[in-house]
Amino acid sequence: MFAECPFSIVEQPKFVYDGKWLKVRQVRFKKNDSSSEQVWESAHRHKIPQSKPSGVDVLATLHKNGKKYFILIKQYRIPMGGVCLEFPAGLINEGESVEAAAVRELKEETGYTVSKVISCSKGKQSLSPGLTDESINFVVVDVDGNAPENKNPKQNLDDGESIEVVLVESDKLLTYIESVSTEVHVQSMVYAFALGMNYAQSCKV
Amino acid sequence: MFAECPFSIVEQPKFVYDGKWLKVRQVRFKKNDSSSEQVWESAHRHKIPQSKPSGVDVLATLHKNGKKYFILIKQYRIPMGGVCLEFPAGLINEGESVEAAAVRELKEETGYTVSKVISCSKGKQSLSPGLTDESINFVVVDVDGNAPENKNPKQNLDDGESIEVVLVESDKLLTYIESVSTEVHVQSMVYAFALGMNYAQSCKV
Repeated sequence: MFAECPFSIVEQPKFVYDGKWLKVRQVRFKKNDSSSEQVWESAHRHKIPQSKPSGVDVLATLHKNGKKYFILIKQYRIPMGGVCLEFPAGLINEGESVEAAAVRELKEETGYTVSKVISCSKGKQSLSPGLTDESINFVVVDVDGNAPENKNPKQNLDDGESIEVVLVESDKLLTYIESVSTEVHVQSMVYAFALGMNYAQSCKV
Repeated sequence: MFAECPFSIVEQPKFVYDGKWLKVRQVRFKKNDSSSEQVWESAHRHKIPQSKPSGVDVLATLHKNGKKYFILIKQYRIPMGGVCLEFPAGLINEGESVEAAAVRELKEETGYTVSKVISCSKGKQSLSPGLTDESINFVVVDVDGNAPENKNPKQNLDDGESIEVVLVESDKLLTYIESVSTEVHVQSMVYAFALGMNYAQSCKV
């Protein structure tokens, strides 16, 4: 479990909380033999197979009437106590491929049907690696907004989800984010994507 | 606490686990009056003031001998059970500004001294908003690699940190990430930043 770990694990890791959705794991370790014992607590979801990421984030570009938009969502998040601006995303079902989860989640959360899967990341992308093992893959997709199935997109939300679809012109993402960043919590991945776009555009990398 | 919440909170939220570093909060809610009661569990760090993000992520460009590099780190993460590729980052100390935390963390984790702070994000950027209230700000900085203080950068790590500095040429970030993404866990923000760069470069946004 801790194959590459540079620290010595003092005792078998144990779960000190086991709730409905979350578990808390406690690991006792020493940086080296002479150092004092430390404790690392982390949060883990139930029922997530270790071999796959927990979820998928969908970077969807809507092509409509000659313009390009990112399909984002605003969603009230109980853990944050406020509204977050996020990529459409969700947990991957058992036996489901990452790409299939991306297509399903985009449809459920925004009503849009994927026209083309462009790319899918490999491995696991960590979200908050000091706190949890939760991880995702990124799936980049195109959506044809002029296709019949995307004329009147209808969400199909789970009970417990409250989601507003936001379309942002692709060349105005960072400007939009900066204009809302004190009103809503912009998810770090959305912000980082926009900073990456801006970096590439504003300086010769 | 749940001012904009579209759900009805059934009872006062309570902490069902309270450990050394983490607490788990349980919120009982209903999506609407006729729906059944649901539970949302989330992980929260101790001692983080609600008004500020928990931490800072530093997007640092090293300018050296006419070339540009991103300063990244590889770090073993106990919650992930493996090595993660991340932006230099850390928690913001009490009373410390976000920019000061960025300058301090870059110095501690990589040895590099910031030459110029370019920008700092506002609000709070959520990391895993379905799981935790943990959040960050992004600070974009330049580092002059030819300055005397950056000739022989020396890390100053906390006990419990094991960090390797990785310099990646700025025009090769996505290529590099893809080459290591099944060996190390690439943090979602680093991956999203690279996808944003690639998006801006490969298509007229």
